[in-house]
Amino acid sequence: MDWLPTFDVIRLGHRVDRDKRMTSHLGLTARALGADGMVIFGDHDPSIVQTLTEVSGRFGGKFNARFGTNPMGYLKKFKQGGEDCPAGTVIHLTMYGESHLEALPKVRRDRPVALVVGGAKVPGELFGIADYNVSVGNQPHSEVAALAITMSEWFKSVALESRFSNPEIKVLPSKSGKSIFDRKKEPL
Amino acid sequence: MDWLPTFDVIRLGHRVDRDKRMTSHLGLTARALGADGMVIFGDHDPSIVQTLTEVSGRFGGKFNARFGTNPMGYLKKFKQGGEDCPAGTVIHLTMYGESHLEALPKVRRDRPVALVVGGAKVPGELFGIADYNVSVGNQPHSEVAALAITMSEWFKSVALESRFSNPEIKVLPSKSGKSIFDRKKEPL
Repeated sequence: MDWLPTFDVIRLGHRVDRDKRMTSHLGLTARALGADGMVIFGDHDPSIVQTLTEVSGRFGGKFNARFGTNPMGYLKKFKQGGEDCPAGTVIHLTMYGESHLEALPKVRRDRPVALVVGGAKVPGELFGIADYNVSVGNQPHSEVAALAITMSEWFKSVALESRFSNPEIKVLPSKSGKSIFDRKKEPL
Repeated sequence: MDWLPTFDVIRLGHRVDRDKRMTSHLGLTARALGADGMVIFGDHDPSIVQTLTEVSGRFGGKFNARFGTNPMGYLKKFKQGGEDCPAGTVIHLTMYGESHLEALPKVRRDRPVALVVGGAKVPGELFGIADYNVSVGNQPHSEVAALAITMSEWFKSVALESRFSNPEIKVLPSKSGKSIFDRKKEPL
C-alpha cells in the first residue's frame, strides 16, 4: 500500500466559553498519539487552532487543526469518499458503545479513520452514522481519557518521535529531572 | 499475598477557579480505570469530592476522594510507610520523565502506589521524592491522557465491572445506541 490512510479526530459541540481547555487537551492528545489532524465543530474559536499549530511549530511535525460546519454532513461525506479520497470509517467514542477491545480489531486499517469525540449534546443520529460506537469501559470517565486509550490501542503506543520532524524544542526522557534540547540555544 | 495494595492518584496544585473540570475528569478517569481513591492538594474545593462520591453512589463501588495538605510531606510519609501500611512507591507523571513502557515494568506490584499528577506549578523537589518520573511520550499532551494511558498499562485495561458493585445505574455495552439499567425503575 503506497498510500497511508489518514487518522483524524472529530470534536463535536465545542463551546467557546466552557470547552477551551478540554478541546485543547483533546487536540494535544490527538497530536501526541499520532493523529494527522482535528476537525472541530461548534462555536468558532480560532485560539484553539492557533494553540495547536504553535505546538507543532515548536515541537515538530504537522498537525492539521481546523474548524468545520455541519458535522453530520461532514461525516456522511467522509464515509462515502470521493475521487481523491477513499471511503472512510467513522468510529464514535461513547460510554454507551461496545468495548474498544472488541471493536477496534474489526476496523479496516487501509482506510481513513474519523474518530468522533462527543461534546455537550451529541445528536442521536450519530449512533447510526458511525460504523462503530465504541466505549472505553462503561463507567463515566473523560473524553480525553477515552481518546487516549483508544488511540494508544490503535497505534500501539504514543506516536514515534520521528513523526515530529524539525522541532524547535525536544524533550529528552530523563529519570530524574527536566532535560530539554532547544535548537535556538544549541543548533543541530 | 492476602493484602491487596492500594492504588491512589495524587492531584497537585488544584485551583478552584480554573481546574474544576480537569480535576473532576482526572478523578473520574482514576475511578473508571481502577484506582482506590484520589487525594487532592491545592485550593479546598468540596464540590469535586462531592461529584466523585455521587458518581460512586450511582454507578457503584467505592472511591475515596479527599483533600490533603502538605503534598511533599504526604508523599515522604507514604514512601516510609508505618505500622498499618507498608512503604509505598511514588510514581510521578511528567512529560520530562522516562518512558512508561520502560518504567512501569520495574515497579513492584506488592506495595501501595501513589501516582502523582502535576498541576500548574510542580515543585522541583518532587522529581527527587518520586521513585519513578514517568512520561507517556515526550510531546505536550494532557494530564488526563497521561493518567489514562499509564493506568490502562498498569491494570491492563479499564477496571472490571465487578469492581463497581451495587450500582443504581449500569450502562450496558451496545453497538448501536444507549442501553441503561436503572435499579429504581427495574429492581434486580
